[in-house]
Amino acid sequence: MEMYSKSIAELLKQVKAEKPLIHQITNYVTVNDCANIVLALGGSPVMADDWEEVEEMVSLASALVINIGTLNSRTVTSMLKAGKKANDLGLPVVLDPVGIGATGLRTETAQKIIREVRLSVIRGNMSEIKVLAGGSGKTRGVDSTEGHQEGKEVASGLARKLDCIVAITGAQDTISDGVKTILVKNGDPLLARVTGTGCMATALVGTYCGVASDYFLGTVAGIVSMGLAGENAARDIGDGAGIGTYKVKLFDQIFRLTPQELAEGAKIHEG
Amino acid sequence: MEMYSKSIAELLKQVKAEKPLIHQITNYVTVNDCANIVLALGGSPVMADDWEEVEEMVSLASALVINIGTLNSRTVTSMLKAGKKANDLGLPVVLDPVGIGATGLRTETAQKIIREVRLSVIRGNMSEIKVLAGGSGKTRGVDSTEGHQEGKEVASGLARKLDCIVAITGAQDTISDGVKTILVKNGDPLLARVTGTGCMATALVGTYCGVASDYFLGTVAGIVSMGLAGENAARDIGDGAGIGTYKVKLFDQIFRLTPQELAEGAKIHEG
Amino acid sequence: MEMYSKSIAELLKQVKAEKPLIHQITNYVTVNDCANIVLALGGSPVMADDWEEVEEMVSLASALVINIGTLNSRTVTSMLKAGKKANDLGLPVVLDPVGIGATGLRTETAQKIIREVRLSVIRGNMSEIKVLAGGSGKTRGVDSTEGHQEGKEVASGLARKLDCIVAITGAQDTISDGVKTILVKNGDPLLARVTGTGCMATALVGTYCGVASDYFLGTVAGIVSMGLAGENAARDIGDGAGIGTYKVKLFDQIFRLTPQELAEGAKIHEG
Repeated sequence: MEMYSKSIAELLKQVKAEKPLIHQITNYVTVNDCANIVLALGGSPVMADDWEEVEEMVSLASALVINIGTLNSRTVTSMLKAGKKANDLGLPVVLDPVGIGATGLRTETAQKIIREVRLSVIRGNMSEIKVLAGGSGKTRGVDSTEGHQEGKEVASGLARKLDCIVAITGAQDTISDGVKTILVKNGDPLLARVTGTGCMATALVGTYCGVASDYFLGTVAGIVSMGLAGENAARDIGDGAGIGTYKVKLFDQIFRLTPQELAEGAKIHEG
Repeated sequence: MEMYSKSIAELLKQVKAEKPLIHQITNYVTVNDCANIVLALGGSPVMADDWEEVEEMVSLASALVINIGTLNSRTVTSMLKAGKKANDLGLPVVLDPVGIGATGLRTETAQKIIREVRLSVIRGNMSEIKVLAGGSGKTRGVDSTEGHQEGKEVASGLARKLDCIVAITGAQDTISDGVKTILVKNGDPLLARVTGTGCMATALVGTYCGVASDYFLGTVAGIVSMGLAGENAARDIGDGAGIGTYKVKLFDQIFRLTPQELAEGAKIHEG
Repeated sequence: MEMYSKSIAELLKQVKAEKPLIHQITNYVTVNDCANIVLALGGSPVMADDWEEVEEMVSLASALVINIGTLNSRTVTSMLKAGKKANDLGLPVVLDPVGIGATGLRTETAQKIIREVRLSVIRGNMSEIKVLAGGSGKTRGVDSTEGHQEGKEVASGLARKLDCIVAITGAQDTISDGVKTILVKNGDPLLARVTGTGCMATALVGTYCGVASDYFLGTVAGIVSMGLAGENAARDIGDGAGIGTYKVKLFDQIFRLTPQELAEGAKIHEG
């Protein structure tokens, strides 16, 4: 899949040249990491979640990322307002349905967002995406992992249903636009031991989509970047370290990632 | 106190095997650290603080941690709802009364929680626990330290009054169930120079209590783990570093902590 | 400007001796870093943002820092209450008008704070300060940088208008009390690649002002400390690292900063 490797390398060049402003309405657990990962890649993050200002803020941005990790009634209103405004402006909207399926509030909120906002990309783990697809995914907190045999079917089905890109991340990652589906085999098991690596992957997808005309490519670029950084960080930390050092190295790796390394390191396979 | 050392080593094995889901309603200052420390130990964190979803979320969990570090009227309601639900389900509830005594809101909220929720463990510093015990502890922010001469009396008195475990942490840590009281001499002065090490200790206590049938043991395991990680991290950073590196190493140390190292490193003494 | 170098070194000694309690009402993106940077310098941070408790909390503090990075109607009320109480008590109040100009809510909130609270120090980037000064600063998110030719004029004009200290930070930093203006040439380009270094600089200014009788000096001390740490951290990380390691080293450098190093490393010039 060399075609994709070259294209995502071009997108990384564009991010570094254009420094897109990425508006994120996200959770307070991983918000600092989501800001720093965008900066590390070359984008410019802005966080604002009050309903009185989100429409103005998103108007300055190149993409909107919505993450429901610590939603509440105040921020749900802001997510909907910002999402609709982004739609009016033709900006990409990326959704991370964190923990959907765990509570009614999360499931209903994600479904409401899907009904009222036209999404460009949805990224979640298998159980989260299955809930959105109408299945019976059981979410155990926010870091569940499952086999990805059904990944292709679930991702492509939901992508067709909502006419958007769907990415299921886990031991392997499945990305579909409903017609074509690919597998990304970058990554490292340690990624699941640091909170927010899923949120950060979503933030990277949003950053790439902020410069991409093809959101499928933007999604592949974000997912591969996070996975590759995860591999490189695992190699870097050596035997004597743990998730503290690993997390630090993740940011270092995204910061240092060059277009050439991205193209050469991408493990993209037909789905 | 070799009996305790062996028992807490067993609990660490259980955490790694069972990966308990720990629901935390905590403050936005240290929330990322509280999630990562649970992951580092081997548990699975989930943060949710909207009153519409906390009952469902805690129903999926093995323990509930309530931390009032940046409370507000919205989250206080959630703390009470989640706490009562945890009681109904027989789950352990661990309270960190951050900054109690500094403001009426904190003192009243903690007292309300104590009246309405049956607590399994309370962890705080000397001045915080003294306020709960009805004394005149003066809280100077959230990192106050005092001598621990009165520790045994205050901890065991409050433990008897509320029929729960009480841990007072500081230069030395006192843990009591109202009948037996122990001293933990693990730790390092640098722990007080990083924000959130108290919150993280509470999160570890919650994680161990998520697998323990004996919450006294769960509390000892959490307090010893944090102290031992603090000692090891201080040894690791060498002369050229500061609290940035030290904080990173704390997560590494919790991640790398083995049952055997925990048993051998525990400094548990009769209170 | 050796006079300033010696004076700010004295202030650092005072911070380490007095450990001032610094109350911050700040944003949830960088709040953990703002707490840790105060601890690293030698102060004691406390975060509280509920309107029911901010007056009591600020009464225990030596300074108040207000940062509007993720403001909402609940916290704006708290900012005003805490600011007025700090005024009543004669405590320094430091404002960081994050992202002002980007949205009406931010601009109106900052202006409201200026009308209702007597400020000691305002720190922002060029575009933010220009908006406050009544100019047409365009804010692109929160990390905009511009040339500082107009810095002196804008800073001294706003300082005279509000009778406070104004600091404009960027590639170079301009600090004015309306009469005298200085330039600080410490710093490193990497500082702009980590989220929250502006917020942290403001937190350091607040910490120094918590012990200073002269808030101009307190501001210079905070700005120089952050810039010098930024230089030293850049030197420390070597070629193989990125912003993950750099951020860790920033905290190490503030922690290790001695009065002598501060005096010797300060690059203070006439404005």
